[in-house]
Amino acid sequence: MITPRTVSGTLELLPRQQIIHQHMIDVIRRGFERFGFLPVETPVFELKEVLLTKSGGETEKQVYFVQSTGSLQQGYVPDMALRFDLTTPLARYVAQYERDLAFPFRRYQIQRVYRGERPQRGREREFYQCDIDVIGKDKLTPLYDAELPAIIVQIFDTLKVGPFTIHFNNRKILRGLVQGYGLTDPETQILVLREIDKLDKIGAEKVLASLIGLGLAESDAQNLMELIGHKGSKDDVLAALQALPVEDPLFRQGVEEVTQMVAALRALGVPEERTRLNLSIARGLDYYTGTVYETTLDAHPEFGSVCSGGRYDDLASHYTKSKLPGVGISIGLTRLFELLEDTGLLPETPPLVQILVAQLDPALTPLYLSLATELRAACFRVDAWLEPAKLDKQIKFADKNGIPIVLLLGAEEAAESSVTVKDMKAKTQTRVARNNLIGFLSPLFDVRA
Amino acid sequence: MITPRTVSGTLELLPRQQIIHQHMIDVIRRGFERFGFLPVETPVFELKEVLLTKSGGETEKQVYFVQSTGSLQQGYVPDMALRFDLTTPLARYVAQYERDLAFPFRRYQIQRVYRGERPQRGREREFYQCDIDVIGKDKLTPLYDAELPAIIVQIFDTLKVGPFTIHFNNRKILRGLVQGYGLTDPETQILVLREIDKLDKIGAEKVLASLIGLGLAESDAQNLMELIGHKGSKDDVLAALQALPVEDPLFRQGVEEVTQMVAALRALGVPEERTRLNLSIARGLDYYTGTVYETTLDAHPEFGSVCSGGRYDDLASHYTKSKLPGVGISIGLTRLFELLEDTGLLPETPPLVQILVAQLDPALTPLYLSLATELRAACFRVDAWLEPAKLDKQIKFADKNGIPIVLLLGAEEAAESSVTVKDMKAKTQTRVARNNLIGFLSPLFDVRA
Repeated sequence: MITPRTVSGTLELLPRQQIIHQHMIDVIRRGFERFGFLPVETPVFELKEVLLTKSGGETEKQVYFVQSTGSLQQGYVPDMALRFDLTTPLARYVAQYERDLAFPFRRYQIQRVYRGERPQRGREREFYQCDIDVIGKDKLTPLYDAELPAIIVQIFDTLKVGPFTIHFNNRKILRGLVQGYGLTDPETQILVLREIDKLDKIGAEKVLASLIGLGLAESDAQNLMELIGHKGSKDDVLAALQALPVEDPLFRQGVEEVTQMVAALRALGVPEERTRLNLSIARGLDYYTGTVYETTLDAHPEFGSVCSGGRYDDLASHYTKSKLPGVGISIGLTRLFELLEDTGLLPETPPLVQILVAQLDPALTPLYLSLATELRAACFRVDAWLEPAKLDKQIKFADKNGIPIVLLLGAEEAAESSVTVKDMKAKTQTRVARNNLIGFLSPLFDVRA
Repeated sequence: MITPRTVSGTLELLPRQQIIHQHMIDVIRRGFERFGFLPVETPVFELKEVLLTKSGGETEKQVYFVQSTGSLQQGYVPDMALRFDLTTPLARYVAQYERDLAFPFRRYQIQRVYRGERPQRGREREFYQCDIDVIGKDKLTPLYDAELPAIIVQIFDTLKVGPFTIHFNNRKILRGLVQGYGLTDPETQILVLREIDKLDKIGAEKVLASLIGLGLAESDAQNLMELIGHKGSKDDVLAALQALPVEDPLFRQGVEEVTQMVAALRALGVPEERTRLNLSIARGLDYYTGTVYETTLDAHPEFGSVCSGGRYDDLASHYTKSKLPGVGISIGLTRLFELLEDTGLLPETPPLVQILVAQLDPALTPLYLSLATELRAACFRVDAWLEPAKLDKQIKFADKNGIPIVLLLGAEEAAESSVTVKDMKAKTQTRVARNNLIGFLSPLFDVRA
């Protein structure tokens, strides 16, 4: 006998939670589609050579390698690996099918990704990511950077996750500032951004010391710290940026892009309080070259970001000579699901199974089957109990599965062509004529073909 | 520069096909849900020890093993493997959560599975399976065996795959017959079933010879061949079975179960021509103990079965002492998709992106953004072109992506608060007042929240 168990850190839910999880995916997908994004799915594994293009280090340490029985038996080194994010497969996909795609290419992808790490709550080995990216050919206006928060706002509002804030920034602003302050070496600029990214974790004092250590004059470092600590409105922060006596072109370009983005957010009707121009958002990844996003639940800033992304200059330089700038954002669905579960905020979903046709008398089975068929043809979601069993057991089944309506049909009902409708929540029983049944049940549910 | 490519035999589609594929999954899922099935998803990999419970051979040769970078570097043997079907994870799942589930447990599962084989069209390394199973505790009436074809009929009709036939049989009939003919050794009976299963491939003559070789008397073998070649209606075949002078109890039980199933199929309203009691259906798998199913497209019997399954006595004997009989059926979605694609029968799907808001004048950008927002709020699926570009390029984009409506809004329309609606298919342009726009567009689409 083998103990039934899963690998720790992998994804598995009981049906009740799975229904909620599926509902969340549906809402996210509909939100993406409403903004004109097209679906893509990629294989779970890729050739190692294709997947591990980056200069490695951290990523390579967390990969799961895959090989067939034959390859293993012959002592080969695995040449495939599970995807660890959805961005690398996207880059490969866009380069591979470049001629078949229409640009700007809006794609969404909702799939699981894999990281070979020591699992803990919030850091799993298998988790869902829900990504959108807009990929341009040669160029892509910063207006697209404003659409992504608009999509996330619509989705998170529909999911009823409570108040949340999408923080955004533009790395050109910070890099340009630092450049204006005399740090012209790009690598040092990146190090400054990484220090700023640690603000929430290590505090302002340590970041200030690091910045000075990296070569900033004390007054410049203090100016920078003041700026990234700015808690004002988008207009206040923009005004503060405009007023800075820094003429660095990268800085000015960043300010211009953010200004355009703020105007576009308003034209898109995104509520003011849902986005914040937060100059302390830097994102650790060197990959990002412009806009960066992080999203926090207002009631739980300690959870960190549940939806992040940014702008990149060139998506697929490892695979193609075409220049493919893009902007993307990713909902960490598994993390979000766990947070909502832990805080009791999982969205309520309509009942999946709406009706249980109970079995009162095995001799009436043909009646139960045709009743179920009739209701299913009317688009209700119907379970039919077919096993001889006490009614009590069937009611408990309905209760355990959250089925709101149980239909009772015994000899009496059969004789008068009626059905007794038992409402599990209201604890009522109503005798309904069989030919009125659908009319009686329809208002109780959102019935769709 | 790395050549962008996928591992051969894995799953990847261009967006247009992906939309159709997603539509097929949606139809299948809604069909499953309409019959009261609950969703389950399991991790892509399982512990090797848990996954490879069967006495091995073929299965074990086709598994993909998984290990982390650390495990590989330390020279460990992989202790995880990718799921190769959805039945083994279901068995593990039901045993693991037995106390939390309500029985009879109806579960559906739509996920990819993995086989480490040499790929060819119709035999991939990565493919989708769409499984439903009903699992009972201790017992499960054969009535459930009639529901599964009813579900498949509803789904395949909705998918418009053309005429198809669900062939079913009951292995008890064949085994009981063979037993009645004197072959009492269960292993020999299984060998007989395997020979019968080869009928389509090797022809009647060779099967007859094999049956005699396995110990059947020539006249009995000929009787058996005649029976499995019976092309009559369900009632004809049932009558032929009833008339046989065989008293073997297993045979009689099989006939009784099939008789019950035929009656239930009728009560469920399944059209007669969609199912066939086909005594030559045996399924190679020893796993099945009663009903077996295979589904063929009438126009393409040479494709073999696109939807198969059957009844088993005990799902999870490797993991639990509880007796869990069940019945299940599986749509081989990837195979079905490929067949429909190859024969030009892929279902038509409504356009995913319904409207493109074109950009005629960058100065009107705020107007384009607010127009897109308004339409999205009314549940249209809308792409907005934000990059400065010639209209011609934007129209080509709409054409390539199959977007049926393009909205044109230039200085003239802006001045009079109107929009020009370009219908890509009808090749018409209609000037519509902005405040009538939603009313004008709604009848063109099936718009839903």
